[in-house]
Amino acid sequence: VDEALRRLIDERDIYRLLVHYAERIDANDPEGAADCFTADGVGIYWGEYRGRAAIAARLGGILDDFSATSHHLSNVSIEVSGDRATALSYVYAFHRLRRDDSPLHVWGRWIDRIERAEDGWRFARREVARVGRLSPVTPDGPVQLQPHPGRLDRSPET
Amino acid sequence: VDEALRRLIDERDIYRLLVHYAERIDANDPEGAADCFTADGVGIYWGEYRGRAAIAARLGGILDDFSATSHHLSNVSIEVSGDRATALSYVYAFHRLRRDDSPLHVWGRWIDRIERAEDGWRFARREVARVGRLSPVTPDGPVQLQPHPGRLDRSPET
Amino acid sequence: VDEALRRLIDERDIYRLLVHYAERIDANDPEGAADCFTADGVGIYWGEYRGRAAIAARLGGILDDFSATSHHLSNVSIEVSGDRATALSYVYAFHRLRRDDSPLHVWGRWIDRIERAEDGWRFARREVARVGRLSPVTPDGPVQLQPHPGRLDRSPET
Repeated sequence: VDEALRRLIDERDIYRLLVHYAERIDANDPEGAADCFTADGVGIYWGEYRGRAAIAARLGGILDDFSATSHHLSNVSIEVSGDRATALSYVYAFHRLRRDDSPLHVWGRWIDRIERAEDGWRFARREVARVGRLSPVTPDGPVQLQPHPGRLDRSPET
Repeated sequence: VDEALRRLIDERDIYRLLVHYAERIDANDPEGAADCFTADGVGIYWGEYRGRAAIAARLGGILDDFSATSHHLSNVSIEVSGDRATALSYVYAFHRLRRDDSPLHVWGRWIDRIERAEDGWRFARREVARVGRLSPVTPDGPVQLQPHPGRLDRSPET
Repeated sequence: VDEALRRLIDERDIYRLLVHYAERIDANDPEGAADCFTADGVGIYWGEYRGRAAIAARLGGILDDFSATSHHLSNVSIEVSGDRATALSYVYAFHRLRRDDSPLHVWGRWIDRIERAEDGWRFARREVARVGRLSPVTPDGPVQLQPHPGRLDRSPET
């Protein structure tokens, strides 16, 4: 296969991995989401979790707070280099809290290192950064979380 | 053409069909949206509508309630098999109600069976599932609609 | 390279340009965003700005109002014809206002003419159209901005 075509296929397959992970999260399936990692993969979910069992336990604990989630990906930017790749993705997530059915909106970034395994691409390291959050129930909660990765501290002209 | 390339082209063309359908809806053009179906295609819009005329009439009735809509697709997952394909897409839709200009937010899934027709890919069956809804005007309206397709009923650890 | 493959690569590269522009905006980098234009490119940001210096100054002025932005692209529709292309994209943007940390939601369209330059694709002309806006701080502000480009004025059945 032509090398340029090979690269398009790799990018398409990595996009599918990202979408599949989101779909497993929204299906309330932490084990299925953890299977998207390599055996010794690391997930950074406000704390570092290594290996599929630790990642699944962490994701399950997070998912227990919600009766529904919907993770919408966009701006997926993938750089492939042989059997390794990096990706930066935007995510907006709609949530319903289990305790009172109230909505929670989160805007974030997925920052990934991805490796080609025997059965396809897997996350070697994935970090979730929240750049925004809105909850009508806790409007006084923290509004600023993390900046967009690498956001410049440009002073406004005054 | 190489088979792997053929598949990428098919996936690209199906993505375009999805985007074109959204664009025709947001252009307030129910006939244009219905043209995205095969002649005997079926649309599941809270009720089953068969054929382009029935689908256009149903879509027109829905669109009459809104002065503006904006359907944002993401997480498009396409499986092609010869002249048939299936697709699962996420959609977030912003609406303005005609009656009072109030906003309405809807989160959903598009679940499609797609066929290759003489002039390109068309929907053979499309089902719209709403997984979330927010309206500041009717905050006491139904908050939970349908779960994400296949959502697991995992008990939270208590 | 096969012509169909060439087209897929062009479309992928143009998608990357769109994503890179959004990323530079969200990184608070108006010069980096302006570098996505050709040397004599035109940006239509509620007023017409020609050339990278004018565009960067305009974008900087807009960005000064916000402590955070997050521009989520979707429905990217690209038509390539040789060294020229057109694109229509949907964008939802989350903002935090610098003055009071309040959120601002904007839904819009990016309408682009794109050209192949020596070092890659660049915007020759880009127009931003806002089709919706929500701010909890100014709920009485304008709710309808511009319609979806080409939106039909179909009378609702009454």
